[in-house]
Amino acid sequence: MTQIVRVQNFTISADGYGAGEGQSLDRPFGHADPSRLMSWAGATAHWPGRTEPGGTYGLDDYLTRDFANNIGAEIMGRNKFGPQRGPWENYDWQGWWGDEPPFHTPVFVLTHHPRPSFTLSDTTFHFVDASPKEALAQALDAADGKDVRIGGGVATVRAFLAADLIDTMHVAVAPVTLGRGERLWESPAEYTDRFHLEQVPSPSGIVHHLFWRK
Amino acid sequence: MTQIVRVQNFTISADGYGAGEGQSLDRPFGHADPSRLMSWAGATAHWPGRTEPGGTYGLDDYLTRDFANNIGAEIMGRNKFGPQRGPWENYDWQGWWGDEPPFHTPVFVLTHHPRPSFTLSDTTFHFVDASPKEALAQALDAADGKDVRIGGGVATVRAFLAADLIDTMHVAVAPVTLGRGERLWESPAEYTDRFHLEQVPSPSGIVHHLFWRK
Repeated sequence: MTQIVRVQNFTISADGYGAGEGQSLDRPFGHADPSRLMSWAGATAHWPGRTEPGGTYGLDDYLTRDFANNIGAEIMGRNKFGPQRGPWENYDWQGWWGDEPPFHTPVFVLTHHPRPSFTLSDTTFHFVDASPKEALAQALDAADGKDVRIGGGVATVRAFLAADLIDTMHVAVAPVTLGRGERLWESPAEYTDRFHLEQVPSPSGIVHHLFWRK
Repeated sequence: MTQIVRVQNFTISADGYGAGEGQSLDRPFGHADPSRLMSWAGATAHWPGRTEPGGTYGLDDYLTRDFANNIGAEIMGRNKFGPQRGPWENYDWQGWWGDEPPFHTPVFVLTHHPRPSFTLSDTTFHFVDASPKEALAQALDAADGKDVRIGGGVATVRAFLAADLIDTMHVAVAPVTLGRGERLWESPAEYTDRFHLEQVPSPSGIVHHLFWRK
């Protein structure tokens, strides 16, 4: 099949925010409590961060189990990689995920401050100062025929939407409000000119928003 | 992860029938019109039988795209393999699916009339006269660490449910009635003593029933 560009398991608040204000080392989601946003995913059997047996196999699990399905590379913004801003003071920081990152593919980190690539387990991080289109060309090549995931955060998803580079997008809308922070949308209707949209409520309280290109 | 035993994309009518009466070479679903049962799946981008580009990427597609995800073997009843009954008159018949069956794994066909194994493309059919438990042991071994799909038909799914060998089960209930034939259930509540159940309506008119073991 043709390679496509996918957003998956991207969770936002009911008022449209993907992260709060004031990201820091201690608070990667800023003032937002990530557990209130992400608990739907953590409850599923196939959540990539799951370390114990168990978990649910209902609707939400279909979404989490698709996270890595036919994905060959990810692109993320610098703030998903770390809380630092500006030039790197050193290269000690290797991302939020410890020695076993959940990506298992090449990951392209968009930044105006490139640094050398490095590998943790089966994930290799590359740092590119490039437009969405240029970064995507690199990621599609690295994905070796598989799809590319746009991993976020909000600014990165919005940049790829603005450049019309996204084919399918799964946004999980959580039943919490944040009031401020980085906003993906005021309403999903902002994207229905270009995308089909199905809104699927889950028993967990999440409403899955499934977009695909018209 | 542990190997599990899964039913997937198993479609029945609103009154619980998986196939009609009177299976024959011309009518593998008996008096039932399979297009009325299966159109939800055929509309999706990832339907294994899709031969042209296009198709939807909404909720239904998450179900069809999971069909082969981490599956290492399938078990099916003889009537899913062919319309013949009793001893084989010859071995000319090689299943309903032509030269490129959509399974891509070993397939174990339950029958009281074994015949030699054969391979079409990357699918190998084995014929076993065995109990569900014995057949499952063979399939789990052949699956090489991956999961086993119980492919149907109704009698086979019911036999594996009766033996308590199924871990997760996706049943798609279509908005058509058949009135007679092979029945999976009168009500899904027959299984909620042993399984969690989520009922998820799709815009296609299908109601996805997602069961997993308590």
